[in-house]
Amino acid sequence: MKIEDNFIQIQHKRPLVQCITNFVTVNDCANILLASGASPTMAMDVREVEEAVEKVQALVCNLGAIEHLESMILAGKKANTLGIPVVLDPVGAGGTMLRKEAMSRLLQEVHFSVIRGNASEIKAIAGLNVGAHGVDVAPSDVITEGNLEKEIEVFKGLAQRLNSVIAVSGVIDIVADGEQTVLIKNGCETMARITGSGCMLTTLIGAFCGANKADAFSAAYSAIAVMGIAGELADERRKRSGTGNATFRNDLIDAIFNMKKEQIKEKLRYEVF
Amino acid sequence: MKIEDNFIQIQHKRPLVQCITNFVTVNDCANILLASGASPTMAMDVREVEEAVEKVQALVCNLGAIEHLESMILAGKKANTLGIPVVLDPVGAGGTMLRKEAMSRLLQEVHFSVIRGNASEIKAIAGLNVGAHGVDVAPSDVITEGNLEKEIEVFKGLAQRLNSVIAVSGVIDIVADGEQTVLIKNGCETMARITGSGCMLTTLIGAFCGANKADAFSAAYSAIAVMGIAGELADERRKRSGTGNATFRNDLIDAIFNMKKEQIKEKLRYEVF
Amino acid sequence: MKIEDNFIQIQHKRPLVQCITNFVTVNDCANILLASGASPTMAMDVREVEEAVEKVQALVCNLGAIEHLESMILAGKKANTLGIPVVLDPVGAGGTMLRKEAMSRLLQEVHFSVIRGNASEIKAIAGLNVGAHGVDVAPSDVITEGNLEKEIEVFKGLAQRLNSVIAVSGVIDIVADGEQTVLIKNGCETMARITGSGCMLTTLIGAFCGANKADAFSAAYSAIAVMGIAGELADERRKRSGTGNATFRNDLIDAIFNMKKEQIKEKLRYEVF
Repeated sequence: MKIEDNFIQIQHKRPLVQCITNFVTVNDCANILLASGASPTMAMDVREVEEAVEKVQALVCNLGAIEHLESMILAGKKANTLGIPVVLDPVGAGGTMLRKEAMSRLLQEVHFSVIRGNASEIKAIAGLNVGAHGVDVAPSDVITEGNLEKEIEVFKGLAQRLNSVIAVSGVIDIVADGEQTVLIKNGCETMARITGSGCMLTTLIGAFCGANKADAFSAAYSAIAVMGIAGELADERRKRSGTGNATFRNDLIDAIFNMKKEQIKEKLRYEVF
Repeated sequence: MKIEDNFIQIQHKRPLVQCITNFVTVNDCANILLASGASPTMAMDVREVEEAVEKVQALVCNLGAIEHLESMILAGKKANTLGIPVVLDPVGAGGTMLRKEAMSRLLQEVHFSVIRGNASEIKAIAGLNVGAHGVDVAPSDVITEGNLEKEIEVFKGLAQRLNSVIAVSGVIDIVADGEQTVLIKNGCETMARITGSGCMLTTLIGAFCGANKADAFSAAYSAIAVMGIAGELADERRKRSGTGNATFRNDLIDAIFNMKKEQIKEKLRYEVF
Repeated sequence: MKIEDNFIQIQHKRPLVQCITNFVTVNDCANILLASGASPTMAMDVREVEEAVEKVQALVCNLGAIEHLESMILAGKKANTLGIPVVLDPVGAGGTMLRKEAMSRLLQEVHFSVIRGNASEIKAIAGLNVGAHGVDVAPSDVITEGNLEKEIEVFKGLAQRLNSVIAVSGVIDIVADGEQTVLIKNGCETMARITGSGCMLTTLIGAFCGANKADAFSAAYSAIAVMGIAGELADERRKRSGTGNATFRNDLIDAIFNMKKEQIKEKLRYEVF
């Protein structure tokens, strides 16, 4: 399915997306879902997550909410049983022992349709040593045109091993499902100057998956492309109006709210690898 | 008291409003209180809520913060003893067993001056079967001109039974205190495209109650009218400037910040039923 | 070092700042760090804070996150061992018994490079009786030109006793390190009409300390001056565009994002006492 059609699908199907996500960016995650036409529920209490997940079309788990690990596992397993797609954002994976253990439990207990993180996080999941630095990608892990080919092999292997779509954010975004690999070259640097770009993107992947259950691969790269395009539109606005990162955050969500099929077609920089 | 006078009263009395509220929208709730002239305190630790409530003019409990149920009960009972109005937002009531039980405990232990929710949530409290869907009203529970009369009977009965003002948000807002019923027809559809419209409104009812302790009924419908008018003003701005839901959220709070008596008088669509 | 050079230093050193902070304003704290050129990590789980703090250049503890007191103590002690500056925001100190006890434990176990609060909070730490009122300064504690000299003695004494820089926010900001005292007269009233002005400022002090470990005193007053100037710029924008407190919050963060050395030099109102 075409990216723009995947996006429009959200407005038709209005999926309810349950997020077990961190409190730093939870408000932005809810608003970007609403901007896209989806609906959020942030029920994450361990006593009700399984019941809540029965009514949703997608589940998003964000490792930043590590205190809710048990909720992620319970909700994730239930979602697996019900055939509801589960999307994971491995925030800070590999950064501390606690997160390493949490990741290992999550991967053992839950099947994820899509795992989206930065290169450090994804490589930590792949068992590689990474130069984790807070929640941002380490300089040594940044993907460039130069190391692209080698890195893709790692992500492809991981996708095959976990039977998950692996989405790696960076200047070049890589989406691999084990067979096919797609590169998205949309986005802008200002996205790294707000908190929540990554969390919002993962949540948006949840919306795309909820509206297109059959194809997590196209859902993932469509969300990434639309988010990148929204970032570009917001950055144009920022440059025109002399605003900064806080207004950029709102403009980014607004751009999703107002996104037109034509904008996606015109701005898309997509490449099959 | 007139709605516009109720609003101005907040700026004179500057009530301190304690909120035990969910982390998704807590920042917006604090900012809308500050916009109105009230002051927020978000103390919700079970070890200090009773002490904190002694200094406030109103207490707002939001079922979205279900992990703080004990804090709500302790603070609520203390507020009842002190004659401080308590306002409840039954977020997702009826949606899960956990919330049903929490609601039942809350209603048993605390007297609420005002309970504000969507039709699904309020009907769940009234013991009716509802089509709960996340935190939004279910299509089958939407109030229209057609079923208005019948629905009002339900809310009126509930208001009498609980001795609380019952406020039901929707295209038409209904406020019932068991004797009188008022309809407010302000607001706009974009309010449903941001997270926190409901939470902010309930918090604003807290500010109105804190500034007008004697009349929870007029405090409730005044807050609802002012919020709806702010929504209309923000939506006019959105249409003029081509922005989206994130900027709308800010414009909504800004509209409260800048609200003039004349705007309230001019835009009010209020009806005694 | 000059205030404007201290600010530019953040963009060169890009310090990673760990915040154990309250969920009301955490998103704004992260975004103001990113605006300044610093990077946030909000890891606060008691099981990983010590490990996380090893990788950062500054630690910020915010008493609003009182449920994370143990994390503050563990991370703070570790930071002390490593020579990483620790900044404290004693939100609501003196307001409840719980906060009094928490403050007492924090001061016993952790050395803070900088403690920043309003006059009520700082005087509570100094052991004085204060008229605490939620999280805002009590009218009886407000600092004016009239009581300035006497108040400074209190803060200077506290700075000596704790071997910390004491920063007191108000119309006139006071920064004392026990020997020197500096007054900053930047800022605007609208800053008191948003939630998080104080939390964001404390977080920004963390960024300045992280980029200038050698001089917590100049880091503290530089951050306060830059924040006040950003507030003035945002307020000019608010007056021009007829917006309110929500947009002001974004404009404030944007002003940090776009701050130029020349703006700091031009607008600075700084005085050695």
